[in-house]
Amino acid sequence: MQDVPLLISRILTHGSALHGSSQVITWTGEGEPRRRSFAEVGARSAKLAHALRDDLGVQGDARVATLMWNNPEHVEAYFAIPSMGAVLHTLNLRLPAEQLVWIVNHAADRVVIANGSLLPLLAPLLPHLKSVEHVVVSGPGDRSLLDGASAQVRVHEYEDLIADKPETYDWPELDERQAAAMCYTSGTTGDPKGVVYSHRSIYLHSMQVNMAQSMGLTDQDTSLIVVPQFHVNAWGLPHATFMTGVNMLMPDRFLQPGPLAEMIESERPTHAAAVPTIWQGLLQELKAKPRDVSSLGQVTIGGSACPPALMAAFDELGMRVCHAWGMTETSPLGTIARPPARVIGTDEEFAYRLTQGRFPASVEARLTGPGGERLPWDGESAGELEVRGPWIAGAYYGGQDAEVLRPADKFSEDGWLKTGDVGTISPDGYLTLTDRAKDVIKSGGEWISSVDLENALMAHPDVAEAAVVAVPDDKWGERPLATVVLKEGATADFATLRAFLADEGKIAKWQLPERWTVIEAVPKTSVGKFDKKVLRGQYAAGDLDVTQI
Amino acid sequence: MQDVPLLISRILTHGSALHGSSQVITWTGEGEPRRRSFAEVGARSAKLAHALRDDLGVQGDARVATLMWNNPEHVEAYFAIPSMGAVLHTLNLRLPAEQLVWIVNHAADRVVIANGSLLPLLAPLLPHLKSVEHVVVSGPGDRSLLDGASAQVRVHEYEDLIADKPETYDWPELDERQAAAMCYTSGTTGDPKGVVYSHRSIYLHSMQVNMAQSMGLTDQDTSLIVVPQFHVNAWGLPHATFMTGVNMLMPDRFLQPGPLAEMIESERPTHAAAVPTIWQGLLQELKAKPRDVSSLGQVTIGGSACPPALMAAFDELGMRVCHAWGMTETSPLGTIARPPARVIGTDEEFAYRLTQGRFPASVEARLTGPGGERLPWDGESAGELEVRGPWIAGAYYGGQDAEVLRPADKFSEDGWLKTGDVGTISPDGYLTLTDRAKDVIKSGGEWISSVDLENALMAHPDVAEAAVVAVPDDKWGERPLATVVLKEGATADFATLRAFLADEGKIAKWQLPERWTVIEAVPKTSVGKFDKKVLRGQYAAGDLDVTQI
Repeated sequence: MQDVPLLISRILTHGSALHGSSQVITWTGEGEPRRRSFAEVGARSAKLAHALRDDLGVQGDARVATLMWNNPEHVEAYFAIPSMGAVLHTLNLRLPAEQLVWIVNHAADRVVIANGSLLPLLAPLLPHLKSVEHVVVSGPGDRSLLDGASAQVRVHEYEDLIADKPETYDWPELDERQAAAMCYTSGTTGDPKGVVYSHRSIYLHSMQVNMAQSMGLTDQDTSLIVVPQFHVNAWGLPHATFMTGVNMLMPDRFLQPGPLAEMIESERPTHAAAVPTIWQGLLQELKAKPRDVSSLGQVTIGGSACPPALMAAFDELGMRVCHAWGMTETSPLGTIARPPARVIGTDEEFAYRLTQGRFPASVEARLTGPGGERLPWDGESAGELEVRGPWIAGAYYGGQDAEVLRPADKFSEDGWLKTGDVGTISPDGYLTLTDRAKDVIKSGGEWISSVDLENALMAHPDVAEAAVVAVPDDKWGERPLATVVLKEGATADFATLRAFLADEGKIAKWQLPERWTVIEAVPKTSVGKFDKKVLRGQYAAGDLDVTQI
Repeated sequence: MQDVPLLISRILTHGSALHGSSQVITWTGEGEPRRRSFAEVGARSAKLAHALRDDLGVQGDARVATLMWNNPEHVEAYFAIPSMGAVLHTLNLRLPAEQLVWIVNHAADRVVIANGSLLPLLAPLLPHLKSVEHVVVSGPGDRSLLDGASAQVRVHEYEDLIADKPETYDWPELDERQAAAMCYTSGTTGDPKGVVYSHRSIYLHSMQVNMAQSMGLTDQDTSLIVVPQFHVNAWGLPHATFMTGVNMLMPDRFLQPGPLAEMIESERPTHAAAVPTIWQGLLQELKAKPRDVSSLGQVTIGGSACPPALMAAFDELGMRVCHAWGMTETSPLGTIARPPARVIGTDEEFAYRLTQGRFPASVEARLTGPGGERLPWDGESAGELEVRGPWIAGAYYGGQDAEVLRPADKFSEDGWLKTGDVGTISPDGYLTLTDRAKDVIKSGGEWISSVDLENALMAHPDVAEAAVVAVPDDKWGERPLATVVLKEGATADFATLRAFLADEGKIAKWQLPERWTVIEAVPKTSVGKFDKKVLRGQYAAGDLDVTQI
């Protein structure tokens, strides 16, 4: 067979020629959306590559960063930068300023392409970005914010830069294992970690996304890509849609429930992808002001688990939610919850849709127990999920001229990714996640799920909120500490709650917490998740009033 | 990203574990079909690999041939042989005996796995097969036919051989570019040519088949695989279906219209794949004895063009025909005729369905004119189709210890496959084939389509059949010779026919034939195609009575 490399330039030239009339439709917040054909995106990607090479001196594996919303210029950057051999680095505009600075300096980005609306975010960072020589600005926004921001940086207008460039580019024949794009994870501990995607991994991932068992889209579809392009390549959708001519509907910076409802009603996308929070907001919006969202035959939800009530509510609106699981390190498609044929139309179907989903052929999975042992796929044995495959990270970027990083808590000795997620796998390969590995309580060689204990506690009528964390124990290694927020006027004591767990909560006796405390509120992270780090710190410092029973 | 090779063993272990309850359903000609789960196929593939290695001494890249119908044992061979690192060689049981002997000796097959029903074919060949040491027989058939057939060959029963072997096998981590399977093309001239498929090419091809823009099947589908497993890996379907849990419906040796109609009605497949001849036969059968074939939402037709009338007739029966084009050298998926979104539901849709279809992203295409020049994709310029891609052949197998073969008439200098097919490509990438390159008339640096002339001639009421071939011409290089079979009592003379071509046939003046002859019948090949080689030979030998006008 011919030794033809799997390259992003192939997706680009294919999509812009054979699907030239497919469109990137972009919300503008007022009046008509912008409409740009794939043929135009292809021609403009070639222009951008010429500009980056000839005017800005981008060569070799130079990193070109983007600080952009979902829009066609960002799609052009997605294709031009890797296709010319450079590396696309998408910057997460939600990160704290100091993290963004650290990341840009670590990646040694030479160019930043930014949306005008994000200059208020970029301008104050610029003096701290050591490697950045050029900023290219696209779309509306106050350019004067950049005046004098940094002496070393030249500022360009995106449209001026590409205006007179040729509409074709002689894309080089690269090694398919070469870096194409990178994305940093914002770990809760330690420095952010850079995940580097190759041409090969992105190409294979795009094929998988287009497989009927995954999202299965064709040029008859329009995909509303809400998941930001700075989150794991927007789940691979810009590449996948260009490969098969699927129209893209891009919200740009209009991610609020109102505009999303409007664009669904007016552009009638057949598919959408976003995290549950977005859909929760949309659901409220639709309750307040109903719109026709029935075009959405398929809605991919990932990022975190979709609450059953939300899934059921969307079913009623004719929007069919499909769960998927992945992470920055998995490109991200790890599993997708299309129920097995045998349960379609039965009561079991909904239960399968609530799992994280089934692994495709290219993603191998195994569960590792507390002692490092392999656990069976029996739907009951819970272990840490480890995965392997051609679009799964095998290391983190170490920085220029540095070795790659393979921390032992993230990669097994035989090279599998340790996901940090704990769950079960059914005999037919459906993943159900139950906990984060760092929140599991390792007690005497067995694991206790903090999430199971919390859910059981919160089922008691007197409990408003509950968080369970691991604390050190001389005999067992770790034991659970139950921290409880009681409802106003509640009378239950710890012994009652403990008995409730054993009876109603159906928690095994050896898993019941001995340590209890009442707190005012569970500390939360900026995105509203329980911040157990804080509770563990308070316990270690002796700041909690703990009762032992 | 992890450097995980794309291996057939991955498809096998995935399919037998995550889609373990999917089935291979096999027609037996009487009573219930045989049903074998993917889990069983997986376990039996492991057993077969143990038997081949431990009992028959298969190691390295040894070739193991199959002479089998479509059935689960053949599927087991498909997975066991490449997964253990050896090479599956499917033998085309329709080939003349001397060609089969040549092919087996050229490939140096060490083992032949044969269906019992094919022993009458195999037995007389055995003494001539120099490298074959073992024959393994599966399924009903008279074993005594092999008694004393060859002194050097040991005969085994498939079921006995695998009976006591372990149900798992530690599949080796191979190089994805390693040979996995091979298939010889039966060229009309010269020796057969061996095409070698790699693990990589088969894996990528399987993903493409499963993409929604191609066949797009899932575990809710059942695919009736009529195309033989000895024809280009049954168009990749056994691999593709195992990758996603699609049930396989296998006709075994019951390829007649009657049994096919029965298996469609009783097993209700949602997809089927076969050449037009099979469907033509089925259509006759259904006219004579109607059956419910409406389960077949999608019917892939390839091998040769589907006549429009046949496509329309199946539309009426609720069977939706989808054209595809490919060849042994293209794995075979080259194009598939899913019409573009913009014509769905319009009059144009049927015209698009009659094309050979659109190229997927992994298949690059170009048209080369008579002078070697690149022709535009304008839907009008006809040239020889050349293709490139990771599942397109780059050479033929040269034999043991020999160099690979890259004949200049089959491969361009820059490594593209010259398909030998002549046609046009529309601006949106749809291929329409008009001729075989060897049948095109190269006249003064321009091409004249023999097929166009034939179709125009056969539109005349006096013409029963017509074949046009190229003959040498001092001035133009080549010119068309029109050979015509007149209907009984027909009176048209050559001048009339020539004028008809110019007027009604809309043939350009410079393309009109000067040389004409009347023949009794057009000579045909064994599969009913015009055998123009014979006509060219007769002309060269002066055996035709040619009139020049």
